[in-house]
Amino acid sequence: MGDKAGTKKRIEELGKMLLKEIKAGNNPFMDIPIRALSNVAFNPKSRIIEMGDAKSKRYFFNIAHIRKFVQTVTAAAIARELLAVDKHLSLRQVFYRMRRTIPGTNIDMVDEQTESNEAVEDMELLSDSSRELLHINANKNGSAAGKIIIKDKGDLIDWSKLGSGGWAIPSNTEDIEFKKVDAKFVIYMEKAAMWERLHEDKVWDKLDCIIIASQGQATRGIRRLLQRMNTELKLPVYILTDFDPWGWYIYSVLKFGSIALAYESKRLAIPNAKFLGLTAEDIKKYGLERQKIKFTERDASRLKQMVDYDWFKDNKDWQKQFKMMQQYGGKIELDALVTKGISFVSEKYLPEKIKNKDWID
Amino acid sequence: MGDKAGTKKRIEELGKMLLKEIKAGNNPFMDIPIRALSNVAFNPKSRIIEMGDAKSKRYFFNIAHIRKFVQTVTAAAIARELLAVDKHLSLRQVFYRMRRTIPGTNIDMVDEQTESNEAVEDMELLSDSSRELLHINANKNGSAAGKIIIKDKGDLIDWSKLGSGGWAIPSNTEDIEFKKVDAKFVIYMEKAAMWERLHEDKVWDKLDCIIIASQGQATRGIRRLLQRMNTELKLPVYILTDFDPWGWYIYSVLKFGSIALAYESKRLAIPNAKFLGLTAEDIKKYGLERQKIKFTERDASRLKQMVDYDWFKDNKDWQKQFKMMQQYGGKIELDALVTKGISFVSEKYLPEKIKNKDWID
Repeated sequence: MGDKAGTKKRIEELGKMLLKEIKAGNNPFMDIPIRALSNVAFNPKSRIIEMGDAKSKRYFFNIAHIRKFVQTVTAAAIARELLAVDKHLSLRQVFYRMRRTIPGTNIDMVDEQTESNEAVEDMELLSDSSRELLHINANKNGSAAGKIIIKDKGDLIDWSKLGSGGWAIPSNTEDIEFKKVDAKFVIYMEKAAMWERLHEDKVWDKLDCIIIASQGQATRGIRRLLQRMNTELKLPVYILTDFDPWGWYIYSVLKFGSIALAYESKRLAIPNAKFLGLTAEDIKKYGLERQKIKFTERDASRLKQMVDYDWFKDNKDWQKQFKMMQQYGGKIELDALVTKGISFVSEKYLPEKIKNKDWID
Repeated sequence: MGDKAGTKKRIEELGKMLLKEIKAGNNPFMDIPIRALSNVAFNPKSRIIEMGDAKSKRYFFNIAHIRKFVQTVTAAAIARELLAVDKHLSLRQVFYRMRRTIPGTNIDMVDEQTESNEAVEDMELLSDSSRELLHINANKNGSAAGKIIIKDKGDLIDWSKLGSGGWAIPSNTEDIEFKKVDAKFVIYMEKAAMWERLHEDKVWDKLDCIIIASQGQATRGIRRLLQRMNTELKLPVYILTDFDPWGWYIYSVLKFGSIALAYESKRLAIPNAKFLGLTAEDIKKYGLERQKIKFTERDASRLKQMVDYDWFKDNKDWQKQFKMMQQYGGKIELDALVTKGISFVSEKYLPEKIKNKDWID
């Protein structure tokens, strides 16, 4: 989707195109790709959730379009400013940067953050650049450790020498350079407490890998980082979650992308990521039957939705898991492995799973 | 509250004391400090929220006590095991470690995590040690950067050379050693996005300081770290939050402690922390009037509660702020400072506030 120079160029091209229309006395317009469900689908070839080609025209001289038109142009101006001064803002900060009274009127450019968010999303599509390339940051969360040395903002950072805390993953991981890689794979987990358990046991040292966690759903910064490690470094990415429809959905988003961010799947999804978390077979194998957390109605209906997703529909391995979970009627947390030993997860579960290639695709 | 050796000794003393009672044919008991509101109060001298001296006896041969008695002893055994093998577990993991069927019965040691949590809290009091000293970790969250070099788990970590991400703060900050300190103060902020804004502007380099953020309420690890920097390094701690009753409560907890964790105030509270966030005066001074977010009913009632807190009751500066906020009927976010310029917060707001000692105590 292009580098920084490309992003800047495409923003400027948009401006020039609009200027040309204005000078020619035409009604300036933008071709906005449609971000609705009707224009989103799972692509079985690329194995990611993608956006279609449908677009709609947004005109300046159109009472129904003008507000959004001006907001989108303002988002372009803010991105251009940020690129020029080489600084970043969060989505919330962009909202404030955009929020001003239009001179000579009582009208504010934006009233709610949803408006500036949508303008930013439109700009991502119009400039064929992620919001990170537009210097607009999402949430920051997560920790990393392992056998890799990166370069970021001029600093060389050795992820194997960062004490008990690890490296704090930034919201924007576009500019990280991979300098020296001794890791053979990456494990992403949904819980920081599990990360601390594995980190204390130096799993990344024993298994030659990298461990990354956030809390719950992975941030965009982490998703992009995992994808870059997968494509640029050719490292397998393993996803470690509970035996739980919500944990499995975290895997689903990491691997296939999501409907809400379908227009970013190409930059965020990891179609060859593998599931290394708890399976129905693991419950028996590791004697975890008694650690069941009974399904709530919400859990059960979440699982039911998963069964029907296009990207799981024809996947025999996953359909088998879904069925077994439905029969079991409950969830099991990875944390339950400590019933078998404080370091059971790092000394037995993970080495065994990886050695036996006991993952789900 | 004591070091690791002291913690181990006090756990063993508890065991010996119980054994002595058993051998003597007595009914073994423990003196448990009472963690109820009735035994918690603000101490105007120490300026923290503290626990009183009230205790209750918990007996083994007492049908109403036996379950909790056994759970507390099990928590002691788990802490002793963790100390012996020098490993840590999260509260959730302790729950699973404690959850087993008592031999010869159908009874599980614990059914819900609230039970194991309470057993851990009782052990914290009985052993006069924090849960971190018992090797039981709370949540992990947050990032740090600035002019300090620390040592942790054998690694020397320079917080000024960690790229855009910074150091990921661990859940447990007990064992961090401060090696070289060139910072003159610490700024804690409630939002990671503000941390990224300040970090990108290298505020810590320009103002010779350390910047730390989590997301919302500070973790125990961060609170303890801030307190240690304040007491051991004599660094002033400044709290940066929105003009918002919820942000102010974050300041309140950091400074005075909380009722729920009153038994930990001595190890977590920072009575001389200063408020460096937005005040009623700042709204005018920086022209932020139009950035108002109107109060919801919840906001208004939260503010009303603050007015009556013992630790704010006689504080004229804060009572003035509360009154002005009530009159204004709204909140203002720090992020709104970007309306004045992308780097206004780092180039103008913070340097000015600190130079003029424009904080609230």
